[in-house]
Amino acid sequence: MHKVIFDTDPGIDDAMALLFLHQHPQVDLIGITTVFGNGTIDTTTRNALYLKEEWSIEAPVARGAGMPLDPRREYGEPPRIVHGDNALGNVPLPDVVVSRPDERPAHRFIIDAVRADPGNVTIIAVGRMTNLALALRDDPEIARLVKKVILMGGAFTVPGNVSPVAEANIMGDPEAADIVFTAPWKVVAVGLDVTMKTVITRSTMAQLAERGGERTKLLAAMSQHYIDFYTRFVEDGMVVHDSCACAYLVAPELFATRGGAIRVVSEGIAVGQTIQKPDGRFFPPGAWDGNPGQLACIDVDAEGVLGLIAETIAS
Amino acid sequence: MHKVIFDTDPGIDDAMALLFLHQHPQVDLIGITTVFGNGTIDTTTRNALYLKEEWSIEAPVARGAGMPLDPRREYGEPPRIVHGDNALGNVPLPDVVVSRPDERPAHRFIIDAVRADPGNVTIIAVGRMTNLALALRDDPEIARLVKKVILMGGAFTVPGNVSPVAEANIMGDPEAADIVFTAPWKVVAVGLDVTMKTVITRSTMAQLAERGGERTKLLAAMSQHYIDFYTRFVEDGMVVHDSCACAYLVAPELFATRGGAIRVVSEGIAVGQTIQKPDGRFFPPGAWDGNPGQLACIDVDAEGVLGLIAETIAS
Repeated sequence: MHKVIFDTDPGIDDAMALLFLHQHPQVDLIGITTVFGNGTIDTTTRNALYLKEEWSIEAPVARGAGMPLDPRREYGEPPRIVHGDNALGNVPLPDVVVSRPDERPAHRFIIDAVRADPGNVTIIAVGRMTNLALALRDDPEIARLVKKVILMGGAFTVPGNVSPVAEANIMGDPEAADIVFTAPWKVVAVGLDVTMKTVITRSTMAQLAERGGERTKLLAAMSQHYIDFYTRFVEDGMVVHDSCACAYLVAPELFATRGGAIRVVSEGIAVGQTIQKPDGRFFPPGAWDGNPGQLACIDVDAEGVLGLIAETIAS
Repeated sequence: MHKVIFDTDPGIDDAMALLFLHQHPQVDLIGITTVFGNGTIDTTTRNALYLKEEWSIEAPVARGAGMPLDPRREYGEPPRIVHGDNALGNVPLPDVVVSRPDERPAHRFIIDAVRADPGNVTIIAVGRMTNLALALRDDPEIARLVKKVILMGGAFTVPGNVSPVAEANIMGDPEAADIVFTAPWKVVAVGLDVTMKTVITRSTMAQLAERGGERTKLLAAMSQHYIDFYTRFVEDGMVVHDSCACAYLVAPELFATRGGAIRVVSEGIAVGQTIQKPDGRFFPPGAWDGNPGQLACIDVDAEGVLGLIAETIAS
């Protein structure tokens, strides 16, 4: 069993990833931590609580950061064009969500959960890395107590999606991401190199809605907005960014990785870019030296991942 | 016939490219301009004059910039490990070179040559872009009078060679390169995406030395140092960076290109990176907007280019 904290900003593809973690038989979801991103922190926390209720998820929800680590960093409005005004594709949501979030802020929740079971907790982070950076700042030792961090973010051998080189989760808090990549824990970055190849078609989504009952019906309803947005980038369907990170947890053999220290650009036209110094390549002394080698996913068996996701969420 | 100014910092692969331009029947080499880089400006100018004499090249040599455009930019020592102490692979050079350089500095030479035959001069630039930037600064109108700029520089879909993202010619003067890429002329960047795939083996070089007589014997003698350096990066042989740019001039069909505005990073850990916003990709407003679309070579028929080079320099 994989003990997992899911750090997320739901978000439509976040919702699919949450359903994946909830349903997968080898995953023990011990906490959901929220962060701003696809919506404001109010919106993403409300959405996490709503999905927890709808899907009868036991894990607690802890509310996290509402802005980037560096207060001087501008962060603007949520991407309503991608995820809708309520960040769940404008499906009707109840006025009141009954569940309450955990009393601790997300980063304290993470620290406590990691310290409660040292060496056994994996963090899957699919939004800005702000909560993880805050947890490392409050308690740097947790880096050595976390089993692994799998994050959806970055673009290593392909263009970005919010600039020619930057991916949205990293661009949204570059300082936090750099702290996460350079901490002494194991990080696997599942970025655009694989997620843009992993697309659930409209018709497959319709089949899943039928096969999976109420849970996947809700997911399919949310997804229509997202699919409409993505028609300008992919032929037909839904890029399942966040579920790819969850698929890596249970089926890493479906991914090709490259090792090497990773740094994040914090200024200038390349801001938000993830740059890896591939192992075995030699350069003059630079910003990568002395930092831990991390893994960047650079290719994927997309059919394999899509099959795994479909089996899991419609089971 | 292609009327060509060759802007160069000889340099071993520069020497091969110069021989290519001198020998190719469709090239009219009207000038050689020098720039610092593989050696100091004294060294590269001496080497250009030496090669002009050895190979009986008629084109004049004009001495160019000895430091980057921005005087605050550090530039350090030449890469003796790559090109040798004399930048020509430590082959013995005469104490005195009889030929004298043109009286004009390189950038004035470029301006005069372009204005003397508007629309017909191609500039092939295979060192730092400093001379071209100086020419544009003195006489911005030449951008519309130059037929095309083909430059060896940059890394677009592959890692760099002096940092994980930066290539040496661009890193050596990022401000100049950004001016060249954003000027209203046609630029084709032949970077590491193609040059690292284009390798003349040691045995092919030995055959060329035999076939081509004294000229290629000198080239082969210079190249041993360079080949020894490159054994850590390629299996066997000499990466012919600069000749690739010359091959593009006469055989562009051997290259795959991608269109889009190109900017150069001037600060932070990505300094010296060439970033293209590929045509047809959409991003929030950014540094690429309003700049001319240029071509980046992203793939090559390496066998075709190597055959062309061999035929030309050994003919």
